[in-house]
Amino acid sequence: MTEKNNYLKIVFLGGLGEVGMNMMALEWKDKILIIDAGLKMPEEDMPGIDYIIPNVEYLKGKKENILGFVFTHGHYDHIGALPYLLPSLWHPKIKFFASSLTRGIILKRHEEFKDLPRIFVKEIQDKERIKIGPFFVEFFKQNHNIPDNMGLFIETPVGNLLHNSDFKFDSDPIYDQPTDFARLEELGKRGVLLLMSDSTDAEEEGHSLSEREIMENLEKVFQMAQGRIFAATFASLINRIQQIITLSERYKRKVLIEGHTMKMNVQMAKFLGYLKIKRNTLISAKDLETLPDSKITILCTGSQGEAEAVLMRVVHKQHRYLKIKKGDTIIFSSSVIPGNERTIQNMKDGFLRQGAEVFHYKMMDIHAGGHAKKEELKKMIEIMKPKFFLPIHGQFSMLVGHKKIALSLGIKEENAILAENGDILYLKEDQFFLEKGETPSNYVMVDGLGVGDVGEVVLRDRKVLSQDGIFVVIAVIDKQTGAVKTSPDIISRGFVYLRESKELLKEVRKKVISIIHRATLSGKVVNFTYLKAEIRNQLGEFLFQKTKRRPVILPVLIEV
Amino acid sequence: MTEKNNYLKIVFLGGLGEVGMNMMALEWKDKILIIDAGLKMPEEDMPGIDYIIPNVEYLKGKKENILGFVFTHGHYDHIGALPYLLPSLWHPKIKFFASSLTRGIILKRHEEFKDLPRIFVKEIQDKERIKIGPFFVEFFKQNHNIPDNMGLFIETPVGNLLHNSDFKFDSDPIYDQPTDFARLEELGKRGVLLLMSDSTDAEEEGHSLSEREIMENLEKVFQMAQGRIFAATFASLINRIQQIITLSERYKRKVLIEGHTMKMNVQMAKFLGYLKIKRNTLISAKDLETLPDSKITILCTGSQGEAEAVLMRVVHKQHRYLKIKKGDTIIFSSSVIPGNERTIQNMKDGFLRQGAEVFHYKMMDIHAGGHAKKEELKKMIEIMKPKFFLPIHGQFSMLVGHKKIALSLGIKEENAILAENGDILYLKEDQFFLEKGETPSNYVMVDGLGVGDVGEVVLRDRKVLSQDGIFVVIAVIDKQTGAVKTSPDIISRGFVYLRESKELLKEVRKKVISIIHRATLSGKVVNFTYLKAEIRNQLGEFLFQKTKRRPVILPVLIEV
Repeated sequence: MTEKNNYLKIVFLGGLGEVGMNMMALEWKDKILIIDAGLKMPEEDMPGIDYIIPNVEYLKGKKENILGFVFTHGHYDHIGALPYLLPSLWHPKIKFFASSLTRGIILKRHEEFKDLPRIFVKEIQDKERIKIGPFFVEFFKQNHNIPDNMGLFIETPVGNLLHNSDFKFDSDPIYDQPTDFARLEELGKRGVLLLMSDSTDAEEEGHSLSEREIMENLEKVFQMAQGRIFAATFASLINRIQQIITLSERYKRKVLIEGHTMKMNVQMAKFLGYLKIKRNTLISAKDLETLPDSKITILCTGSQGEAEAVLMRVVHKQHRYLKIKKGDTIIFSSSVIPGNERTIQNMKDGFLRQGAEVFHYKMMDIHAGGHAKKEELKKMIEIMKPKFFLPIHGQFSMLVGHKKIALSLGIKEENAILAENGDILYLKEDQFFLEKGETPSNYVMVDGLGVGDVGEVVLRDRKVLSQDGIFVVIAVIDKQTGAVKTSPDIISRGFVYLRESKELLKEVRKKVISIIHRATLSGKVVNFTYLKAEIRNQLGEFLFQKTKRRPVILPVLIEV
Repeated sequence: MTEKNNYLKIVFLGGLGEVGMNMMALEWKDKILIIDAGLKMPEEDMPGIDYIIPNVEYLKGKKENILGFVFTHGHYDHIGALPYLLPSLWHPKIKFFASSLTRGIILKRHEEFKDLPRIFVKEIQDKERIKIGPFFVEFFKQNHNIPDNMGLFIETPVGNLLHNSDFKFDSDPIYDQPTDFARLEELGKRGVLLLMSDSTDAEEEGHSLSEREIMENLEKVFQMAQGRIFAATFASLINRIQQIITLSERYKRKVLIEGHTMKMNVQMAKFLGYLKIKRNTLISAKDLETLPDSKITILCTGSQGEAEAVLMRVVHKQHRYLKIKKGDTIIFSSSVIPGNERTIQNMKDGFLRQGAEVFHYKMMDIHAGGHAKKEELKKMIEIMKPKFFLPIHGQFSMLVGHKKIALSLGIKEENAILAENGDILYLKEDQFFLEKGETPSNYVMVDGLGVGDVGEVVLRDRKVLSQDGIFVVIAVIDKQTGAVKTSPDIISRGFVYLRESKELLKEVRKKVISIIHRATLSGKVVNFTYLKAEIRNQLGEFLFQKTKRRPVILPVLIEV
């Protein structure tokens, strides 16, 4: 590696080739700066898993080299893995930097993990320039759908990097400054060696919607609504929460905040000055009965159909005090995360059945994503005029789409790199190249208290169990004679309903006894491993013939 | 029920309040006519299930009253449940009616079920009018994305019903006649008491795309493609298959058909004259090597990311002879069925990584659904001028959307009914009303050879097993002393990786021994059911504390 000592190394620990779990390391002569530490929600084929976190194998043994973490914004796909990674990465000199709201969210979440070391997060301001080891990091405000989102202009020994966080351009945001193009141009003029740019919406044509347009559409819903309004959105979408609250105030509605994370975020954002809420706007559950329906907004979580969230409990009539009435209006003010479509459709149907009106982003623009679309991405490249280009944040097809945009603007093919988690990039004044898969990038899964202890084997077992269930056969064998004592016991879960399958079970018992007797009564020494394998194979074949199902078969043999 | 003897009964066995599984029964004084018998794919929370089929509990004991089945078209959501339902519904006098292609598909599929009685399906023509008991059914051609699709004009003792199958209006279809509006108007003029109309796209604005537009866009891809083209679509989308074949012929490409169902359908549609294919167009696998890449189209299944389909095997490099090369072009010419988004995205990423170009319907219009959108649905209602209106085929929100359309055109609120599976509708010249949930409508699931034997219990077990796995503890207890003989055995699947959890298992063994000894050594008579419950509870609590996971715990106690 010494021959690459004059290169800046950029190591992707997450977020490249997938959505979520953003984390990268910049390394200059053994000094490491980390940007973000996000988590990702599990995929459909990972039953029981809570989160996926970045694989930090690369940092093993380099803990002392880590100067610190810089965070771009407070969304969980940028900060959420920190508590799980700290036990292996923390040392007393490590530094953390974040803007005010981001810092608030990080620390609030940190409180929920009792066993972790206390951390000090330095609050940084827009335009602030800090020195961290060999790097100077300058922060610049970027519009997104959470306030206090910061892009990073990073001066390194090889040249300037621009990391634009998650961003969109918004000339007309709500309670926020419009994009400061002059500032961006000023940064561009200083010379950008490498632009790392958000690819999430690189396959989407045109411009992202302005929050002003969203506001106008939401207002139409407020004008129409006769009864209560249930407005569901992400708890982290502070801007949208502000819009709902402002509209409620405008239409003389009081607002009940429902859902643990939503409550927590509103409380903190309000405390830090990122939410403007009039006195008397917020109410508590007991106030619901004293107000007419037309004066009530319920701001809640669950727009993605999350099983435990408020909206799901309401639609399933399992919420303690919120029940849908005819005339209620439900607003889904969020996009649909891929994979949740069916759940959300079923939820929509449920509300309609109960007599509510439902509004969602497919019907009118009551949600805007937080990410720049093609035209904005072009503009970003045109402003920064980078020599080298790296599309970040996104599934592979998005990175490909973003690279095409860069090429269309004259970036040279060899200067725009498609990289993925686990790849290491090497950067110098006049060179930018990649070595593929240099560091492990397999998923690290969090399940309950376990971090990384559920691997491929356990996950494969879970999937097999879920397909056809499990079938346990217990036989007690006489040590002296080799005969099966009493009829074998059978326990099964998820295979067939035992009470209705007596005939099948009778045959199974007969079959098991005959397999054992053929082995044990022959007089030869019996190998139990072999005998168990025989039962698994023959019984498996038999059950498949009878049912075309393949349950996991567990033979338990006990010699007495 | 006698007081309702003068009503036509319409019983929904499926397809109302959900997509797929279409089946209804018309009943007049104990004579029953069935329309369609479709299946539905399982939802995400039904692991291991192959299909869902209509619940025909209502027809129990009325088998002899069934006059016959009329099928509208050959898609599996309209014909696919027939083989599973026949064992309980068939009698020697039952009649089946379908158009030529639909009949071909039904019979071809029937061949795969060896144990079923042979069925005779009478082939019907466009404009044919047949008498079935008290009903006259007249067939009329409707455009959809499979040829030979028939709407039904049904004369009943109470008045005329119009059932428009799945349909869209297409003034410019490919190898098919455009919508015959004169015919539709003629039917409308005869007087339609009740219109039952396809709601699938009732929430979509505007008009469906014409197949001509799709053709033009597909042609652009053919013009650009340098290497091989992999065109993936549904095996049942005969029109799209024709388009791909025609374009291949136009651009001097030979076509390899891959995938069992695709092959079967192409063969049959060709035989029946619904596909026009030049001699020498179709090739077999061994011809691939003799042709330049630019002269090859591979028409295949798997556009939905089905695990076993051709496209999935290709992207995972598991196909026997098809491997992606740089320069290949992949066309996903189909919509994304909700729930498949992530799988398809991952597949797209996989092809891009291997150097292929990917085109899908979000990038350009290379797929059109087969269903009428708002403007077409309006036109249908305007032509038929029904007194009563029933939106069919669709999730509840689609039915609601369709009803709104009807109301906007002057249909009276009380004359447009929202019904769901299990509801029974009563129709007379001047009356149309519903009784809710009169017949069971819970899902009947097909799993392997079992039809309806996987119920809620088994499914719940499968889900629990998939979350945190299973944990089996086996203890042998001395009948005389109550002591546990040797250390308890532990088998676990899907919970933790046993080899890496030695410490935990040691504690579990100690815990189990102590629970048993506390009960057995006390001298009291031991109730094994109680003891097992104790182990389940205490061990469950212990494992949750240690791991925050809740595996299924199976205690096996053996007394010797």
